[in-house]
Amino acid sequence: MNRIEALKQLAFTDRKLDIYLTFNSINLTYLTGFSGATALITPEKGESTLFVGGVNYEQAKEETKGLTVELLKQSENLFEKIASQTAPIKPNKYAVDALSIEAWRALAKAVGGEEKLQTSSNIVREMRKIKDQKEIQFIREACKFTDLGMQVAAEILKPGVKEKEVAAEVEYAMRKKGSDGTAFETIVASGVASAFPHGSCSERTIREGDLVVVDLGAICKFYRSDLTRTFSTGKPSEKQNKIYDIVKLAQETAFKAIKPKAKASEVDMKARQVIETAGYGEYFVHNLGHGVGLEIHEPPVLSPDSKDILATGNVVTDEPGIYLPGHGGVRIEDTVLVTEDGAEKLTVAPCNLSIRC
Amino acid sequence: MNRIEALKQLAFTDRKLDIYLTFNSINLTYLTGFSGATALITPEKGESTLFVGGVNYEQAKEETKGLTVELLKQSENLFEKIASQTAPIKPNKYAVDALSIEAWRALAKAVGGEEKLQTSSNIVREMRKIKDQKEIQFIREACKFTDLGMQVAAEILKPGVKEKEVAAEVEYAMRKKGSDGTAFETIVASGVASAFPHGSCSERTIREGDLVVVDLGAICKFYRSDLTRTFSTGKPSEKQNKIYDIVKLAQETAFKAIKPKAKASEVDMKARQVIETAGYGEYFVHNLGHGVGLEIHEPPVLSPDSKDILATGNVVTDEPGIYLPGHGGVRIEDTVLVTEDGAEKLTVAPCNLSIRC
Repeated sequence: MNRIEALKQLAFTDRKLDIYLTFNSINLTYLTGFSGATALITPEKGESTLFVGGVNYEQAKEETKGLTVELLKQSENLFEKIASQTAPIKPNKYAVDALSIEAWRALAKAVGGEEKLQTSSNIVREMRKIKDQKEIQFIREACKFTDLGMQVAAEILKPGVKEKEVAAEVEYAMRKKGSDGTAFETIVASGVASAFPHGSCSERTIREGDLVVVDLGAICKFYRSDLTRTFSTGKPSEKQNKIYDIVKLAQETAFKAIKPKAKASEVDMKARQVIETAGYGEYFVHNLGHGVGLEIHEPPVLSPDSKDILATGNVVTDEPGIYLPGHGGVRIEDTVLVTEDGAEKLTVAPCNLSIRC
Repeated sequence: MNRIEALKQLAFTDRKLDIYLTFNSINLTYLTGFSGATALITPEKGESTLFVGGVNYEQAKEETKGLTVELLKQSENLFEKIASQTAPIKPNKYAVDALSIEAWRALAKAVGGEEKLQTSSNIVREMRKIKDQKEIQFIREACKFTDLGMQVAAEILKPGVKEKEVAAEVEYAMRKKGSDGTAFETIVASGVASAFPHGSCSERTIREGDLVVVDLGAICKFYRSDLTRTFSTGKPSEKQNKIYDIVKLAQETAFKAIKPKAKASEVDMKARQVIETAGYGEYFVHNLGHGVGLEIHEPPVLSPDSKDILATGNVVTDEPGIYLPGHGGVRIEDTVLVTEDGAEKLTVAPCNLSIRC
């Protein structure tokens, strides 16, 4: 069943909606395989209509099938066009996936008032949580690129090299191997900056004895990967070794808990307990993980207050960390596939604090 | 005057708003210089409060000044926190820059109903249209990276090379020179794909006689640049030369019209008229240009129906194109600064269809 048919099942058979409008660009890419559309009208019966501006119209016609592709001219108002196209169906309510408050009001005006609209952002995002074989293949490929990137990072990381130089070499290696780009801004955070979980990368020159957090992502056919390793550029200190070992144990403990029907909050708790027990609970300042797919952060979320239940086909990160302000930080992260009988790490880069071991 | 003070002037002195809430991440970066915050409360009197999640809290305290940085804990509801923090001020209405319909409703619930909210997305985006000297300096730097990238593209582009290989080398050269990343997905679109304005780049091997559209962007301190050149890999055909010359004339004609107080729609029309007069009007399928800054597409827009009036300090693209489906396309684009007495091209890469001339 293709994705639009699956959406129809969820929207019309299960939820008894009248008509479904998709505006979010990631949801549009997911449903149509094309990344430059503006909106998709999915009625209960008949073909869906994809609205595309002039800049992407010819490409959309070539790259989609089973859809009516309609040109949205510069002078045309999208919402009025949707209203007039759907008028013959006379929907009681239009279900929409995602809109800003301004766009919501403009759509309401076009279709006859806010009472004609309803939100249902969850349907497509929920669908996206379970990856099919093709999606898993793309994420697997993206993960291979990041493994290669991390290998390059481990090779060139040493005192005297700038954070940005590491990022340049890593991204180049992934791109040369076939990555479609970086999944997010590459993080190479050294010294005290390694204590900032999203520490980016700067012109700073890496020094002997630094902790260096390297967080990378690649892209394959719109699908992303996410991998973090932490290195010490010298002989690791006792403290560095200690927090590294705690984070590594936390990551492994959580990994073992990842399986179908596991509560995401409990998987988070498994990692958090290891770090809390070791006395560093207050320094693990983020969630354990997040879904990865067309977006780098998407459902399900692995956090203390998550309501998600894991299922076969989820792809999530497992990424505990300890961040000591003014000192440095350690994070270890893999992209993990939930399988029928447990979990599989899709990223398999070696995990050692000491680079030259 | 810093940006939050400027916002206060616009929001409270000019528009008589009660309190201003910023949620859009780009607006937050613009106002605070920090890129990982969740929300900013700006009251008429006193310091603004920046809400930051645990993952970025330590970094925010280090990288911002003149603000109260408040930790948003995982268990806390942002909107309820805003409501309780602002309760002493008793605002009649909360002005917000941007929210999804779901978030709008959640905020409304927290502060006492939708009638307590008003949209005012334009204030910060309007501010961002006029770049200050520091912003111009960053964009200028980003433009230098793209000029270098285009030079590399021209050097390595030849029959037998894959589109993706060109992108890899170009991005690597920009990154090595200091770019913070790519401003958008690099486009290297060859052969018939060059007729797709957003044709991306693929595994396709470039062939003798192809038109190749190369569209690049770099980043310096969050600020972006945008540059397109089109090359012919062989001896250009008569048709290739013809459409290239038309696009080049259109681009130059529009450039001469860019100055303070010019109507953006008329600048667009100058380019469009050149292409229409030459008989290719229907193949110029997009706007002439867009603002560039923290986002790759931001106001002002240069389009037939734009209401924008250009002003000193705007940074816009000038990028006409002709796209012949099934044949190929040509686009020429520069990033242009509106100066006191006209305009300056911030990208200065050579502009020749023939690479080896």
